[in-house]
Amino acid sequence: MQVRGDRLWANLMALAQIGRGVAGGNNRMALTDADRDAKALFAHWCREAGLAVSVDAMGNTFARLEGREPSLPPVFAGSHLDTQESGGRFDGPLGVLAALEAVRAIQDAGITPRRPIEVVNWTNEEGARFSPGLMGSAVFAGTLPLEQARAVTDRAGRSVGGELDRLGWAGAAPMGGRPVDAYFELHIEQGPNLERAGVTIGAVTHSCHSAFTDAVCHGETSHIQSMPMAQRRNALWGAARLIDAIERTGYAHAPDGTASAVVIDAWPNNRIVLPSRATFSYGVMHLEETGLLAMLAAIDAAAEAIAAETGLRFETALRRIRKPFHFAEELIALTEMVARDLGHSAMRMRTRPGHDAFNMVALCPTALIFVPCRDGLSHNEAEWCSPEHCTAGAAVLAECVLRRAER
Amino acid sequence: MQVRGDRLWANLMALAQIGRGVAGGNNRMALTDADRDAKALFAHWCREAGLAVSVDAMGNTFARLEGREPSLPPVFAGSHLDTQESGGRFDGPLGVLAALEAVRAIQDAGITPRRPIEVVNWTNEEGARFSPGLMGSAVFAGTLPLEQARAVTDRAGRSVGGELDRLGWAGAAPMGGRPVDAYFELHIEQGPNLERAGVTIGAVTHSCHSAFTDAVCHGETSHIQSMPMAQRRNALWGAARLIDAIERTGYAHAPDGTASAVVIDAWPNNRIVLPSRATFSYGVMHLEETGLLAMLAAIDAAAEAIAAETGLRFETALRRIRKPFHFAEELIALTEMVARDLGHSAMRMRTRPGHDAFNMVALCPTALIFVPCRDGLSHNEAEWCSPEHCTAGAAVLAECVLRRAER
Repeated sequence: MQVRGDRLWANLMALAQIGRGVAGGNNRMALTDADRDAKALFAHWCREAGLAVSVDAMGNTFARLEGREPSLPPVFAGSHLDTQESGGRFDGPLGVLAALEAVRAIQDAGITPRRPIEVVNWTNEEGARFSPGLMGSAVFAGTLPLEQARAVTDRAGRSVGGELDRLGWAGAAPMGGRPVDAYFELHIEQGPNLERAGVTIGAVTHSCHSAFTDAVCHGETSHIQSMPMAQRRNALWGAARLIDAIERTGYAHAPDGTASAVVIDAWPNNRIVLPSRATFSYGVMHLEETGLLAMLAAIDAAAEAIAAETGLRFETALRRIRKPFHFAEELIALTEMVARDLGHSAMRMRTRPGHDAFNMVALCPTALIFVPCRDGLSHNEAEWCSPEHCTAGAAVLAECVLRRAER
Repeated sequence: MQVRGDRLWANLMALAQIGRGVAGGNNRMALTDADRDAKALFAHWCREAGLAVSVDAMGNTFARLEGREPSLPPVFAGSHLDTQESGGRFDGPLGVLAALEAVRAIQDAGITPRRPIEVVNWTNEEGARFSPGLMGSAVFAGTLPLEQARAVTDRAGRSVGGELDRLGWAGAAPMGGRPVDAYFELHIEQGPNLERAGVTIGAVTHSCHSAFTDAVCHGETSHIQSMPMAQRRNALWGAARLIDAIERTGYAHAPDGTASAVVIDAWPNNRIVLPSRATFSYGVMHLEETGLLAMLAAIDAAAEAIAAETGLRFETALRRIRKPFHFAEELIALTEMVARDLGHSAMRMRTRPGHDAFNMVALCPTALIFVPCRDGLSHNEAEWCSPEHCTAGAAVLAECVLRRAER
């Protein structure tokens, strides 16, 4: 069996024409017209390959290669086609299109696997427009109720459900609840470790400890020109100081820990009034739980010190704290073995970013397979995975999926 | 002649029912439905008092008490009825309604002044929704072309011209270009100096040096969970550090100088991506030009140091640098004399905030008269001027206007 790197690359570059960004990458946020078009192109390619395409109520798309024993639970392989607003061409699409290429390689080799294989495109992995991310796979896995997901709105007030209906992608296939034999997801690493190590394949063992917090700094509106400095309660100043402290906490705990603030707003946001409210969010990650908790405590202490000094007040809400998800040892070992068999270097590693694979861990043995990306850069239009690494990843994915399906 | 403080206060409190805020003050931004209603109530009260009301193309409203010699240039007295989004009940309305009360006191005393007197409500003094502020008076004074003002849009894309037309407040009166004998504006101080000094009337001599700058910090988008700290180029961090440096520059130059950052935005503004762009604005004030320039230089130096350390890049655009406007010595002396005659304490002082009076300085002798406000607080719903101070200010205004009109 031989995957065709040229065919995979051509599909990746063709898909990247849909929802182009401003700098060579993509802006194809979930459930936009561009995302609809990407879903449609993927489904078209799947039908062209003779696969049976079904769509569930979240717009998750499943393209099935029938097995010799159709009643056996299928092997899933996939990822997502939506991108960040500042997205690249590989984060997501590589996992979906490599899974399609894997199936085509299996077909080209004249193989009908024992178990069915389904190529999956999950809806709204990124969470850039509709938060939280990993949404379609969470509904499939039963951890997020469909109606709750449909009710999520973007900043313009449009809902997931409304957009699914408008775009015609709320399908009739069963919403989860069916057995899955195994799930494989190929993804760019989105970090620098494989590239630095000169290794082609990462067999991901587990994820990291992470926390996302929303914060508000409360001050008092007053006139920017006349209020004496000593009486100012500029909420934006408090937010700025804590944002600074958060990034410094990240540096202090690097490389195991990272921390940054990323979202900001203030009220009222005009040139002549000191704002009474500045809202922001921050994300903290660490390999170890003790590290994560130490970082969160350092940030809390910084907030207290800033509040005491300035008379401003902070209010924080921990939106989510997440412990590691562990992937299936049998599939980690399979990935390493397949990589070795195909002549690729491989290493075990952890993932910092979240992936749809997290939601599948509870349903079936799950594998997350990484390939290198340039400079660790992702969520950036310049994101890059070389054709050689795409092909290598697809080859490993194809062989893993086939061996699992033949089991 | 006797102004009626109860009538003035009743009007102030009645007007404050239009466009109420959330905490006892007002949110009546320019050319909203609420601003239209405030304009209409003011015009209604003026007609009730027998004044001739006219409206120009900017919605500036003039209510005229005819003089014994109607061909003489009128004495103007007024201010504005629009407020900040976080506005109080006195910043603006006091100057308009005290001028109306002055005219009614003159009428009550059976006086027909030699010169006509016009009570003025200028459109969009605050600039909270449509920037820049002092807009209606600037068009009247000929320093801002009407078409340029009409083309200004708010964040929702609605234009000044479109809103004037929609609300029916683009009137037919001549757009400026007529001689004015003098302009008087009564206003709360919006600072703590009168209250601290225990003085009732401020005769404003001139304004301050001020600069408003828009800034952008440029970084690079990347994944918040996986990008190593050393490779992060978080534009929000750079913005935060410069915002901190700006406020500290204000403290370092207080009390003569002030500086704060007040407006913020970032792109993309979602929880999972480090932003590549953070925009903000800051305002710097100082009594002296050397002080202002030193503060601006200190902020530029801070930006350079932050950029050198972080690899981020700042781009700044000085939107406006303004030297002091000087008010007419003859009217300053008149204000002091009238205050003394009426038994009120008075002092000369400077203004930090901008006022429509700035635009009138080029047209005619202009006076800006301050009364105390509590804790120096303004642009805040809790803004407060006591009934006694409102009455005292109106009495001084009335007597100044009458003496000038009789001249």
